[in-house]
Amino acid sequence: MNPRFKKQLALNYWLPLAAAAALALQGTSARAVEGMWTPDQLPEIEARMRQLGLEMPAGALSDLTGFPFGAVISLGGCSASFVSPQGLVVTNHHCARGSVQYNSTPEHNYLADGFVATTRDGELRAAPGARVYVTTKLTDVTRPVTSGLPADMPPRERYQAMDDRKKQLVAECEAPGGLRCVVASFHGGAQYRLVERLEIRDVRLVYAPGDSIGKYGGDVDNWMWPRHTGDFSFYRAYVGPDGRPADFSKDNVPYRPKHFLQVSRAGLKEGDFIMVAGYPGRTNRYARLSEVEHTFGWYYPVMEALLRDWIATIEAAAQEGSDARIKYEARLSGLNNYMKNLGGQIEGARRVGLVERRRQREAALLEWVATRHGRTYYRRSIDGLEAVIADRNRDAREQFWFNNALRPQLLAAAHELYRLSRERQKPDAEREPGYQDRDLRFIRERMEAIERRYDPQVDRAEWLLFLQGYLSQPAGQRVAALDTALKLPAAYDRAALEALLAPYYRDTGLGDVATRLAWVDKAPADFEASEDPFVRLAVSLYPYRMAREEADKVRDGRMQALRPEYMNTLIAWNAAQGNPVYPDANGTLRVTYGTVFGGSPRDGILYEPFTRLEGIVEKDTGQAPFDAPARLLERIAARDYGPYELASIGSVPVNFLSDLDVTGGNSGSATLDARGHLVGLLFDGTLESVNSDWDFDVRTTRSIHVDTRYMLWVMEKVDGAGHLVEEMTLATTP
Amino acid sequence: MNPRFKKQLALNYWLPLAAAAALALQGTSARAVEGMWTPDQLPEIEARMRQLGLEMPAGALSDLTGFPFGAVISLGGCSASFVSPQGLVVTNHHCARGSVQYNSTPEHNYLADGFVATTRDGELRAAPGARVYVTTKLTDVTRPVTSGLPADMPPRERYQAMDDRKKQLVAECEAPGGLRCVVASFHGGAQYRLVERLEIRDVRLVYAPGDSIGKYGGDVDNWMWPRHTGDFSFYRAYVGPDGRPADFSKDNVPYRPKHFLQVSRAGLKEGDFIMVAGYPGRTNRYARLSEVEHTFGWYYPVMEALLRDWIATIEAAAQEGSDARIKYEARLSGLNNYMKNLGGQIEGARRVGLVERRRQREAALLEWVATRHGRTYYRRSIDGLEAVIADRNRDAREQFWFNNALRPQLLAAAHELYRLSRERQKPDAEREPGYQDRDLRFIRERMEAIERRYDPQVDRAEWLLFLQGYLSQPAGQRVAALDTALKLPAAYDRAALEALLAPYYRDTGLGDVATRLAWVDKAPADFEASEDPFVRLAVSLYPYRMAREEADKVRDGRMQALRPEYMNTLIAWNAAQGNPVYPDANGTLRVTYGTVFGGSPRDGILYEPFTRLEGIVEKDTGQAPFDAPARLLERIAARDYGPYELASIGSVPVNFLSDLDVTGGNSGSATLDARGHLVGLLFDGTLESVNSDWDFDVRTTRSIHVDTRYMLWVMEKVDGAGHLVEEMTLATTP
Repeated sequence: MNPRFKKQLALNYWLPLAAAAALALQGTSARAVEGMWTPDQLPEIEARMRQLGLEMPAGALSDLTGFPFGAVISLGGCSASFVSPQGLVVTNHHCARGSVQYNSTPEHNYLADGFVATTRDGELRAAPGARVYVTTKLTDVTRPVTSGLPADMPPRERYQAMDDRKKQLVAECEAPGGLRCVVASFHGGAQYRLVERLEIRDVRLVYAPGDSIGKYGGDVDNWMWPRHTGDFSFYRAYVGPDGRPADFSKDNVPYRPKHFLQVSRAGLKEGDFIMVAGYPGRTNRYARLSEVEHTFGWYYPVMEALLRDWIATIEAAAQEGSDARIKYEARLSGLNNYMKNLGGQIEGARRVGLVERRRQREAALLEWVATRHGRTYYRRSIDGLEAVIADRNRDAREQFWFNNALRPQLLAAAHELYRLSRERQKPDAEREPGYQDRDLRFIRERMEAIERRYDPQVDRAEWLLFLQGYLSQPAGQRVAALDTALKLPAAYDRAALEALLAPYYRDTGLGDVATRLAWVDKAPADFEASEDPFVRLAVSLYPYRMAREEADKVRDGRMQALRPEYMNTLIAWNAAQGNPVYPDANGTLRVTYGTVFGGSPRDGILYEPFTRLEGIVEKDTGQAPFDAPARLLERIAARDYGPYELASIGSVPVNFLSDLDVTGGNSGSATLDARGHLVGLLFDGTLESVNSDWDFDVRTTRSIHVDTRYMLWVMEKVDGAGHLVEEMTLATTP
Repeated sequence: MNPRFKKQLALNYWLPLAAAAALALQGTSARAVEGMWTPDQLPEIEARMRQLGLEMPAGALSDLTGFPFGAVISLGGCSASFVSPQGLVVTNHHCARGSVQYNSTPEHNYLADGFVATTRDGELRAAPGARVYVTTKLTDVTRPVTSGLPADMPPRERYQAMDDRKKQLVAECEAPGGLRCVVASFHGGAQYRLVERLEIRDVRLVYAPGDSIGKYGGDVDNWMWPRHTGDFSFYRAYVGPDGRPADFSKDNVPYRPKHFLQVSRAGLKEGDFIMVAGYPGRTNRYARLSEVEHTFGWYYPVMEALLRDWIATIEAAAQEGSDARIKYEARLSGLNNYMKNLGGQIEGARRVGLVERRRQREAALLEWVATRHGRTYYRRSIDGLEAVIADRNRDAREQFWFNNALRPQLLAAAHELYRLSRERQKPDAEREPGYQDRDLRFIRERMEAIERRYDPQVDRAEWLLFLQGYLSQPAGQRVAALDTALKLPAAYDRAALEALLAPYYRDTGLGDVATRLAWVDKAPADFEASEDPFVRLAVSLYPYRMAREEADKVRDGRMQALRPEYMNTLIAWNAAQGNPVYPDANGTLRVTYGTVFGGSPRDGILYEPFTRLEGIVEKDTGQAPFDAPARLLERIAARDYGPYELASIGSVPVNFLSDLDVTGGNSGSATLDARGHLVGLLFDGTLESVNSDWDFDVRTTRSIHVDTRYMLWVMEKVDGAGHLVEEMTLATTP
């Protein structure tokens, strides 16, 4: 890219404002609004939301547990919402697909045919580990976590003190039972909040369309527009007869949520106000230039290359149509998705000039700081932060291949189990998070889940690939503990390595689920005396890995002292310009708003904001992933739109675009109209916008939603799920 | 695709009218006008053209040699036009690139850096074989070619009689010298026209931008929109001091065309009327269903698969960066282009339901015929035509791999040379077309051209691939002559085959250009006595190939009697509906018209009709094919638009889309505005529209043009070719 143009771009170096529309080269009326706001920030930005079209009563927005946000829930990794007083939950098809797969058999191929429970009794248990988390309370715990820690406290002690305090807060929060609490860090530790969540663990599958609707377009259309995916499915949350979370039981009853959303049949048109409430996972909008350069200059390209090899390795080891391939389908799909995403991020960073923009932002901040008191202090803390980041970046490069070499599933399991046995020697409160009694259920579920995802041939092929990378790096980056334990040769030699690894797979007992579960309750001595090769390897590597973890904690302690300083300066700088600052995504409830908007992602192309039923026919080849069911094609040919037609497009809208600010974790999020009616489910972003995780670009950022009109149309006209439409409350006027 | 939808599509089974807009699922105002009209047809459709915006004086259109069509010329395979009284010719960069490559050396890399002649003396000789053909006269010769041949004439005799008559017409036409004449068949032989063309053979390269402008986007953007390619270059036509075509000489002078085009600086806006005049190569709009099914059901998929293997074979044999790769770049690019085109055609045929539409058309025609006199005769001629087509289709399948096995370049050369020696035994007038004295120059040029396109390693790898296909087919399709001559094994065995082919490349003298040229003048006995392995192989295969050619001529003779009947019926049917019928493209001058139009090629996407300078910056990665020159990027950053800005897009338009009806051969065609000013050069179509060669689809057919404003901007602001801008006459008002 030409340096001059970069500079022109860089003028918009700081973009919490929609004003950056100067970037949009088109005459399109981009009004993209950056920001994943915490509900308590909404009163601050309510005026802007009303300007765009919000019509809800004043005050409704700031109540996390009121309407509508009280209806918005997390599935852990995905978002969802209640849509009936009987605990009916709507989320994305791709968020519930694991449960569809879990229940599928050769006789009942629900993945292909879809599943509709016509009665409560017919509902199916969701896959192990499925949860519904209802956020019930959010408390600022910044003081309890951070107060009274002296500035010159040694980093390791700071880390431990904060860790202990957080565990204590969680323990107190969870004491009444049925709750899952977490202390979430905001603004890099400048703020901590305790999130109290009801943890519903009896979750059942109610309705999922077949892949030929719910996954229409598959990997080909993933991250793409135009899109025609029916990415919706329904769960139901059950609790014990006493109304409290309980394990699965026939006696359980549907959970009665305090709030549920009305589903809009009237829907949206172009330019309408919408907001999305959900649980975005992670963004890096405030990362330092040095972190951006590390990620885009080294990590992403290296990882992208590894992903390519990794995918090829699995595909070669697990032939299409084999049982092994079925086990690795989810992983393959995840790796492909990640690779496509990385490609999009790398290209997006180039296009917007991410590195140069970040450089400009830091320079501008520094200029502002220079005019302030305390600038010397600020410079010192920045220098300190940069030193920690440099150390972490170096470590990441050096440990990259070692960390990959630890990926084999049974080695990872052996390590987790051995670690658990060691942690259990301590009182519960002193254990490492993840190994407390509250975590046992999840550990067991993970040990069970390996059953459906592990094949020794494929796992070995993956390990060979990782070890090839490990052995091909500079000798200085090799880890003696691994070299010794695995008896690794000086250089890569495929035959030798194959011979070396064969006994692991031949002799281990960890391939058996009962054996893995039995290890959950064993003592360290049992591991240390074991002849199981993976257990032995995990035990030999343990001291090195623990030493590294200690070093990480020291670094985290330093970071915990330094990053908040930086973030507070950044926040003050923005406040001086009248800009509120939203925190980076961290898996907690956020609200983002904007409008139904297509716009121009690239010169010469315009996105229409809605796709149509006829677009499905246009794409349909009869071959997956473009193989819509005959009944659906028939209804389209008959123009049987029912009450779901959008006049301006002359059809039922399938998916729509918006300029909202979302990321992974937002999948399944409720898309609400100006009055809080459910008008869609967010399920994807365009490939041009994935770079927004690092730098929100108003020109390119577009999120993709499935329209509730299409959902209702499919339920009523195609899938025979009219009884669920009846269970929901439909809003027939906008 | 759902059968019902297919039927809905099929209602528009016959589409010479723009009225088929019902197909356009969008509310876009598609006004695409099907038709590649011969100039003599224009008066018939002039009213429609005026309705769309044509403003030229009445009568101007029907004069082939007047303004503007007299300025429109052919380069043989590409179209072009005169743009100055000094014989300056503008065409596409990709049409002149062979001449740029021909003149490039390690010291002067014109492909990379571009070339501008600042004086006449500095102009460079175009590549051997470059020609400028100026159509000077078009005469209907249907009667001289076809009259007096009895209906029951044996097919072989009919073929010969017509061939002799055509050769006679050509010979008479060319008698004055300096002309190249051809008898072109229209409507499958229902009409013949004698095209008289001035053949200018001193052609010089005047100006070509570098690949980073002229080929911007390369194979990635090929057939794609949005597009930012500066696909323009300039030649100059030279003639002897007497004004007649002559071989290259210092004494030659610029040709003074009767007409040249004014170049528009004012340009177009969305919706403006445009027309394109050029030499489209071939379409199949009137092909029978049985021909469509053969092509899409067998030939295209088989060819697409072969192309994939063929490309991989060349890439493996000619390593990137090697001399061999440079020699095969043009072939690779051609094969890739063809493969992408076939993929687009196959997908397009599926999307529009080509087979079903053709079936419906033939059924409708049959229905109409049933109401007419002569229907029995019509049915009989249709049955006859179908029998010939079936025979040809079967033959194509059976001979597919044999024909591929004849592709090695030196084998093809040996065959052509031996054939020439045999033909030369006859008086010139009796020889096979292509082997007459008038063809000798081209044969010599082809023998020379092998020098720049042949590498024995790569050629052998290709031959191995073709022979693998040949040996893997059913034994019944093998050709004894080839099996014997090559001593082919019963089944494919790579090692054996390699051993078999090695001596061909080791012992042949045909790899040497002087040797090949020497063979041009030898006698059949010289060939028959030769020890050169390729010559020996060509001689052994000769009787079989001649026998096949005889059989082809018999079939052609039958076709010549039957196809005109069918076409005349089709024309009568359309006439009854008030629709004029344009002939399929056949390399003669055609005019097509329409408007500047983006529209929606697929549900959910809109094409903007113009791209902008800033779109180049947006795509630019600094790596080919997205590596615009620094100077160009600077001028964009400086917004130095000069007088070339289009206000409605806020920039200089780079490329634009239209709904015109074009195909291969149209490359370089003059795009004219309502008054006949040059506003662009046609250079491509979108991938969605390539299927229009078989079935014009108003929804998807879009042609891509380079805007003259971009051309002038590059010449003036970037490439220092302002003196050429001054040589041209600019039209500053639309």
